Amino acid sequence: MAVYNVTEQMAKEALHDSVFRSIMACTCQLCQDDALAIALNRLPVRYVATQQGEAYVKANYMQPQLQSDVLRELTRAAQVVSANPRHEQATGGTSQSNG
Amino acid sequence: MAVYNVTEQMAKEALHDSVFRSIMACTCQLCQDDALAIALNRLPVRYVATQQGEAYVKANYMQPQLQSDVLRELTRAAQVVSANPRHEQATGGTSQSNG
Repeated sequence: MAVYNVTEQMAKEALHDSVFRSIMACTCQLCQDDALAIALNRLPVRYVATQQGEAYVKANYMQPQLQSDVLRELTRAAQVVSANPRHEQATGGTSQSNG
Repeated sequence: MAVYNVTEQMAKEALHDSVFRSIMACTCQLCQDDALAIALNRLPVRYVATQQGEAYVKANYMQPQLQSDVLRELTRAAQVVSANPRHEQATGGTSQSNG
């Protein structure tokens, strides 16, 4: 089944942006996944079937409001995760910061 | 990146249920994808990072309210798609009903 959430794609692309690398105390996979999940649960969902998807993603990507919503929620989520990283419980080690 | 929307997984599993096969005039991939996208855009989003995902999905699956929301929206979406199938525009043929 070929449906996907355009907001998810935009958030994943935005998370690769250097601005989040500098905000996040740690950029390990667990911290990135947690930040992404926290942000996506606070963002409007936009599912499309694949055929329409490509055109819809491009059109949406130009929409300033959705972009700023994604950046706002990712910033907030990055701070939440940096303050309470789960990886410490998982690995018992200190946070692997990419300083 | 390993995050996914628990509601999406529940809707995909529910769509395989025979009740939707009987509601949908056509069960081609395009009609199923369109019904899924329409329903998911009206359902609460619940993203999880993969590690928590399995336990969360099982716990959630028992939650009657979410299940009935998913079934309600899928039923509505199946009727919408059956009334306006896109595949006619795509293939120009009549709807391939699996009657």
